[in-house]
Amino acid sequence: MVIKMKTVGIIAEYNPFHQGHLYQLEQAKLLTGATKVVVVMSGNFVQRGIPAIIDKYARTKMALSHGADLVIELPVCYATASAEAFAYAGISILDRLGFVDYVCFGSECGDIKLLEHLADILVEEPTSYQLELKKELKTGLSFPKARTKALLYYIKGKESKGYDQTSLELLLNSPNNILGIEYMKAIRKRKSKLRAITIKRQGAGYHDSDISLPNASATAIRNVLVEDDLFSLPKDLPVETMTILKQEFQKTYPIFRNDFTSLLYYKLSMVKEKDLTSYADVTPELANRIINNLTYAKTYDDFCLSLKTKELTLTRINRGLLHVLLSIPKTQNIEVSYARILGFRTDATKLLRTATKENRIPLIVKTANAKQLLNQEEYELFEQDVRATHLYHQMIFQKFHTYFSDEYTHGPVILKE
Amino acid sequence: MVIKMKTVGIIAEYNPFHQGHLYQLEQAKLLTGATKVVVVMSGNFVQRGIPAIIDKYARTKMALSHGADLVIELPVCYATASAEAFAYAGISILDRLGFVDYVCFGSECGDIKLLEHLADILVEEPTSYQLELKKELKTGLSFPKARTKALLYYIKGKESKGYDQTSLELLLNSPNNILGIEYMKAIRKRKSKLRAITIKRQGAGYHDSDISLPNASATAIRNVLVEDDLFSLPKDLPVETMTILKQEFQKTYPIFRNDFTSLLYYKLSMVKEKDLTSYADVTPELANRIINNLTYAKTYDDFCLSLKTKELTLTRINRGLLHVLLSIPKTQNIEVSYARILGFRTDATKLLRTATKENRIPLIVKTANAKQLLNQEEYELFEQDVRATHLYHQMIFQKFHTYFSDEYTHGPVILKE
Repeated sequence: MVIKMKTVGIIAEYNPFHQGHLYQLEQAKLLTGATKVVVVMSGNFVQRGIPAIIDKYARTKMALSHGADLVIELPVCYATASAEAFAYAGISILDRLGFVDYVCFGSECGDIKLLEHLADILVEEPTSYQLELKKELKTGLSFPKARTKALLYYIKGKESKGYDQTSLELLLNSPNNILGIEYMKAIRKRKSKLRAITIKRQGAGYHDSDISLPNASATAIRNVLVEDDLFSLPKDLPVETMTILKQEFQKTYPIFRNDFTSLLYYKLSMVKEKDLTSYADVTPELANRIINNLTYAKTYDDFCLSLKTKELTLTRINRGLLHVLLSIPKTQNIEVSYARILGFRTDATKLLRTATKENRIPLIVKTANAKQLLNQEEYELFEQDVRATHLYHQMIFQKFHTYFSDEYTHGPVILKE
Repeated sequence: MVIKMKTVGIIAEYNPFHQGHLYQLEQAKLLTGATKVVVVMSGNFVQRGIPAIIDKYARTKMALSHGADLVIELPVCYATASAEAFAYAGISILDRLGFVDYVCFGSECGDIKLLEHLADILVEEPTSYQLELKKELKTGLSFPKARTKALLYYIKGKESKGYDQTSLELLLNSPNNILGIEYMKAIRKRKSKLRAITIKRQGAGYHDSDISLPNASATAIRNVLVEDDLFSLPKDLPVETMTILKQEFQKTYPIFRNDFTSLLYYKLSMVKEKDLTSYADVTPELANRIINNLTYAKTYDDFCLSLKTKELTLTRINRGLLHVLLSIPKTQNIEVSYARILGFRTDATKLLRTATKENRIPLIVKTANAKQLLNQEEYELFEQDVRATHLYHQMIFQKFHTYFSDEYTHGPVILKE
């Protein structure tokens, strides 16, 4: 009797890897009975439109040391995109690898049925939901509020979920629930066989900056690093995270957005207003505000704030500016076309061989081989990642005089069993 | 009887304005009997492909204080071009202003007839010169050596000048003679009525870095500033130069090429090899070397040196990289299409009124008016200047936290009589 080993996938940023991530990783195996964990992880720039605090190889090492078997890079244009594109790209990679059975994600609500149900409504848009949405919009409600009302109306009509307007609004405004719904939408859209499970987030919330709470958030940990205060790091950080954070401090990290201030201003002063809108997430309105606010740089952060209006959210501004900085153009295509391997445990090579044989998606282990594995369009996407990585390494060199080898020769992190 | 006032033009960099420049300015008036001096000056980047040590407004002030009546900016794409394009653009502006009678320049030889004669040969390429050049090239000589031989042959045939191969080679290799010949070529090509005079350079040579020599060169002065050693500045520096250099030190200057290291690396890491060659002075060979040598930045200077080969001169490399940094594309058109005024003495306004009436060339006094004065193509050229200036000001801000007002609102320097 052949017992197929099960594999669970996780989509993450690990910025940095903390106790909550470790909990999720362990629960993912426990709840699914999977023996292997594949992580699709952001590279050196993350979804809120900022650089990661520490580089992707260090974060890969943290993940592998604590139970991940394989870490694949989410290409930078998706890693820094909206929740919808981020989630769709992450699911696409897991799906196209062909050997992943489950996807596991954290959510504030912890209710996979509800997230799935909401995703179904948003993908299908049933007539009664559509009609209710139109009705609510006519009363002058904002789109998010009207959508919540319509969703609530539709859910209640189908099956009582015990949610009211306020609690459903809260649910729909929670960042991990939002991502969760997008993961479910992506699975649905791709007709993927991936089975989803969600884990209710424990401890500190996503935005919670209190470092003393149990399971302090990544935000809280980063804030400690801003203050150069390694002593205040939570004592319960996963061991390899702690080791790396101590070893690498002021050698390869911390990297902040403000380190890129002069580069951002340089790029912005070299681009014409009409060309600005060729970059992802730069609307004509944002382009116009950029040009009109472009005096001398105080800091990158201050510049972002100076652009904010009622209509332009900070997240949109952050992403738009980052895409200008990284030269990431607008693109219609959100299908992910390759899997670039950042690291693996030696016993995960079997997984890789399966994927390679089945030829599901080009697997890039050695970056130098990318050109022959990818077609022209894919390679251009890959080059975006290389450029973003070189820029990040350049910043490390500039700040700490630490040299990283060229992305074309940098091999994956390999953890021997 | 109306006695027309004569005007003399000078093409310069004034990086910074020193005793030799003052001498030239005074001699120019003396020798021509001119009462007004118009200077066409490089902006914030200069011909050897580097930033000026101090900004263009400060250098304008130095020039006006010591006898210049009007300072016009040589657009950045010409200011950082080959001697031929630099000289042609400078002469074009003086010519098209319509009120300039003479052009005066320094040269190592001090022999205007000889420079004119050489220029004539190079523009006309008489048959016997051409034949001799071909013959010499066939013997395996390099182009410059063969050209010198052919020129010598032709001159000797016409009139004995007392030059031999060595002395003519030396003459043709001296930077100010080279420029001088180019000025004469430009006058000839434009069929300009400008009369040229040359002044034999006094004191230290162009490349001479000895600060203790009388009339120390701009190179020697800049070297003192590199060392942060204001006390070693020559005591005979023109008074306003000395005042400004003392007042502005570590406030708005010195600016070095190495200040732009991270920006250069950023730009280079963002451009594809094939797009590199779209910038002025970037040959496919240079583009290829840039890509292959692009590891982590030590300094801008070191990077330039790392690109050098027998075929690629440092000057070509410097210019190529600067044009990438400033986004200056290759262009066929070397006709200058506007005159942007950096500063004037109040009694020079008459000159400006004449030029404006005769509508010879669009005169930009207020940069904010440029858009309505210039056509699309001209305005794009003008925007190159604005971008280069903003980049330079951004660097001043970054280094010294000194704020310069926006180039669109920065008025010309006005010196009241």
